Amino acid sequence: MEQMKVLVEGSARHVHVTTEDLAKLFGEGYELHFKRALSQPGQFLSEEKVTLEGPRGKIERVSILGPVRKASQVEVSFTDARALGVTPPVRESGDLAGSAPIKVIGPNGSIDLPEGCIVAKRHIHMTPEDAEKYGFADKETVCVRVEGERALVFDEVVIRVSPSFSLAMHIDFDEGNACCLGSETYGTVIKK
Amino acid sequence: MEQMKVLVEGSARHVHVTTEDLAKLFGEGYELHFKRALSQPGQFLSEEKVTLEGPRGKIERVSILGPVRKASQVEVSFTDARALGVTPPVRESGDLAGSAPIKVIGPNGSIDLPEGCIVAKRHIHMTPEDAEKYGFADKETVCVRVEGERALVFDEVVIRVSPSFSLAMHIDFDEGNACCLGSETYGTVIKK
Repeated sequence: MEQMKVLVEGSARHVHVTTEDLAKLFGEGYELHFKRALSQPGQFLSEEKVTLEGPRGKIERVSILGPVRKASQVEVSFTDARALGVTPPVRESGDLAGSAPIKVIGPNGSIDLPEGCIVAKRHIHMTPEDAEKYGFADKETVCVRVEGERALVFDEVVIRVSPSFSLAMHIDFDEGNACCLGSETYGTVIKK
Repeated sequence: MEQMKVLVEGSARHVHVTTEDLAKLFGEGYELHFKRALSQPGQFLSEEKVTLEGPRGKIERVSILGPVRKASQVEVSFTDARALGVTPPVRESGDLAGSAPIKVIGPNGSIDLPEGCIVAKRHIHMTPEDAEKYGFADKETVCVRVEGERALVFDEVVIRVSPSFSLAMHIDFDEGNACCLGSETYGTVIKK
């Protein structure tokens, strides 16, 4: 079977918010302002920025990604986590039970999330057509090899299949730095 | 042949200095104060801290490692490089020609290094006895697999053999975060 190549994208720290939390942060009835489309259909970088605060420090100017979600969620790298003084688990997006607490500060107010701070588990978004063509299944874990002067093979990469996705791999900035990720870096997906 | 297991150590950003540069930073005749031994025989963490300054920002409280060397050298991660606004190459220690310029600030004065700032190429220190036992040669590159929830295989790991070394692999904090490096993480060395 043909080997799948996937564009590897580095996800900067970011926040997803509920409509309720957006109101607390920016004011009643506030809506996110579209800045730029992301690789996943319908997802966008908003103009809105917040500050993250942990027991040890703050990180300012963190972007909110839209649209609003059913649960607020803060995705950081372990580098960020150290600066904030939080200890987030490695999780898939949306798997927030027992994840780290964190404070999010906006211009209108702040929210104290009792849980919701995670380090994103590296993953590949793909459509059912991609999955079928290359023989992958939803929730399957694979390896992905990235070439270059810091070549490496990421193991424990989870595949997520949905008709609403577009083919792309997401890693965080620590992982991106570890493999010298550039703006047009493709990885080779290796079945385990 | 038996597979080699190696302790993987995360190297924080640090500075090596010449006697001359130490004098500029801390005063004439100044000597480094031993704080803690490192894994490599004779190498130590000193009590002395300096500030790094690049076009975009500063990083304070960066440790100097002793003893003094023949050339001053600043080792940072790509995360640090972004904060400083410098663009260091990935290099082996000591290979500084054409590497990035950086300013180092001490309590007595500062030095403007025209080159010397690098991101350390991941590497394994080993003795000639280790190398012979496991069939490795100086400057050979190998892969190293690290297990765990962020399991990965580092490629482009250079082996450095010297009787003055002790067996250990060194990666930077970005790389450590990418594989959830703990304090007692061992990697498996894979011959290419």
